[in-house]
Amino acid sequence: MSTPLMNRQFRLAARPVGMPKPGDWSLTSEPVRDIGIGEIVVKALYLSLDPAMRGWMNEGKSYIRPVAIGEVMRAGGIGKVMTSNSPGFAVGDIVSGSIGVQQYWAGAADDRTAGFRKVDPAAAPLPKYLNALGMPGMTAYFGLLEVGLPKAGETVVVSGAAGAVGQSVGQVAKHKGCRAVGIAGGKDKCAFVVDELGFDACIDYKNDSVKEGLKTHCPNGVDIYFDNVGGDILDTVLTRITLKARIVICGAISQYNSTAPVKGPANYLSLLVNRARMEGIVVFDYAARYHVAVAEIAKWMKEGSFKTREDIVEGLENFPEALLMLFEGRNFGKLILKVADE
Amino acid sequence: MSTPLMNRQFRLAARPVGMPKPGDWSLTSEPVRDIGIGEIVVKALYLSLDPAMRGWMNEGKSYIRPVAIGEVMRAGGIGKVMTSNSPGFAVGDIVSGSIGVQQYWAGAADDRTAGFRKVDPAAAPLPKYLNALGMPGMTAYFGLLEVGLPKAGETVVVSGAAGAVGQSVGQVAKHKGCRAVGIAGGKDKCAFVVDELGFDACIDYKNDSVKEGLKTHCPNGVDIYFDNVGGDILDTVLTRITLKARIVICGAISQYNSTAPVKGPANYLSLLVNRARMEGIVVFDYAARYHVAVAEIAKWMKEGSFKTREDIVEGLENFPEALLMLFEGRNFGKLILKVADE
Repeated sequence: MSTPLMNRQFRLAARPVGMPKPGDWSLTSEPVRDIGIGEIVVKALYLSLDPAMRGWMNEGKSYIRPVAIGEVMRAGGIGKVMTSNSPGFAVGDIVSGSIGVQQYWAGAADDRTAGFRKVDPAAAPLPKYLNALGMPGMTAYFGLLEVGLPKAGETVVVSGAAGAVGQSVGQVAKHKGCRAVGIAGGKDKCAFVVDELGFDACIDYKNDSVKEGLKTHCPNGVDIYFDNVGGDILDTVLTRITLKARIVICGAISQYNSTAPVKGPANYLSLLVNRARMEGIVVFDYAARYHVAVAEIAKWMKEGSFKTREDIVEGLENFPEALLMLFEGRNFGKLILKVADE
Repeated sequence: MSTPLMNRQFRLAARPVGMPKPGDWSLTSEPVRDIGIGEIVVKALYLSLDPAMRGWMNEGKSYIRPVAIGEVMRAGGIGKVMTSNSPGFAVGDIVSGSIGVQQYWAGAADDRTAGFRKVDPAAAPLPKYLNALGMPGMTAYFGLLEVGLPKAGETVVVSGAAGAVGQSVGQVAKHKGCRAVGIAGGKDKCAFVVDELGFDACIDYKNDSVKEGLKTHCPNGVDIYFDNVGGDILDTVLTRITLKARIVICGAISQYNSTAPVKGPANYLSLLVNRARMEGIVVFDYAARYHVAVAEIAKWMKEGSFKTREDIVEGLENFPEALLMLFEGRNFGKLILKVADE
């Protein structure tokens, strides 16, 4: 009898107040269980670290149930099938799904919460499946196209432009004939957004005035604002929107760790003056059509007209600290935790 | 030579800070000028007093230019043609248009700012043309139907339910097969909204908890919220919206006189969680189709299935005080200033 495979896991120990602290997590270890008919074991390779994770740690009704105290933290990831009692998956298959912050996932191959599907490791480097070919890319694609409804020639502004979703929003916008203006924190991120990703401009909110930047780079106003940050930046953009503008509410990272009440957009009456629209997007609603977006973005990537950058931190044990990078704007590109070698 | 007809006028003397004060107005008098070819003189009969007037008194870009200091205050109204050098209007015709807070209007019959059009005094009492058959009715009709997009069986909540727009919103909703729940201030207004107008329920925000009221009267959540008030009520409703809910931003009377920064909706991330939409409406956008709404509402009025209430204050000189009634919730029904006998 062989020594059982041990599985290290980060579990939610307490609901954070403000920024998650080390004590909000417990690092536990348990053997990977034997699997039955129809089940598989998946070894985590890469885990996706996302602003939305902060919301999952809170109690209360949302678009997805909160992670329970004592439960393994939810995380999407890319893994490799290690053992399979399911005809749908072969040992060695690379899969994408909700693995959780742990080394191994074991359960029914068709578990709906995990939602495993095979990905093609030959088509793109695996981390891309957590970025433009994964949730961030899907969020950008469907959020911009189905909620933002861009028309060629319009001006699209996106906050968190160097982040996972923002990178793709601007590039999808460019591919659809729009002017793309990013908002990001710092000169390096802004240079990357313009020089590497091909945005028309990028406003450095840490060093420059967003209001002045919008005047300069969006002389005809903002037709679509894709908001990942909320707070003051949302309020400022609201002063520059055009008639019938669309504001896609994708996130509000500036507010997630705030212990003060959320700052609502004081300039929301600009929606009235401009007959504009503010609408939320949750990517899961578009799951049935992910393949359409993946096919189009993969084509653009192959042509060299769609680039993304990942910021990869190594080691499961670095999860708590890596997550903080997101909220402090210290990541540069889509933040990914590498858990094991491919 | 006869003594010229004198025209008393309320002019904006200063931009108000907070609630408009008597000193923000000047009551002036000037002779009605002689008219040339294509011009008419209209005698004001009824003037419409609306929350939007507060916005027109502020400086700054909006959906309509501000009233200038020294200018006659803008107001819609119903008047009678006293003199006409225009083939389009006969002496005695009853007209609707932007008369201003004055006794007489003189100018080109086709003046686009005034926008005079004839109304039929036989079809409805004249004050109705400033209520359900005027801007408030048009706002309710197009705001609910074109922005709210109600489906039969949905729950529509409207704030300011006893006010000019609110009365019509709930009744249009009922005619379209929806459940209509009002929010109004005081037992009398709530009783009127339910007993006279036929709403399914009304929440008295002055005496009862809006949150509890919504739980009781909208057990399946709020599909459409038509907001006339903003502030805390908007924030509370945001906690009770359904998936894909629509919030029609028509006004924010709670905020118009505030000298503090506007209170943005702190719960706006409910739009994200619920993939919901918040959108502004300005009635002028629908001017080309007012006749459609007037025809349908007039038909309902004739059938007895659409009622409205007006609160009529007499005397041009009472304008400043009457306007305050709006902001203090002291009017009961559409507030109208009667300036002269029909």
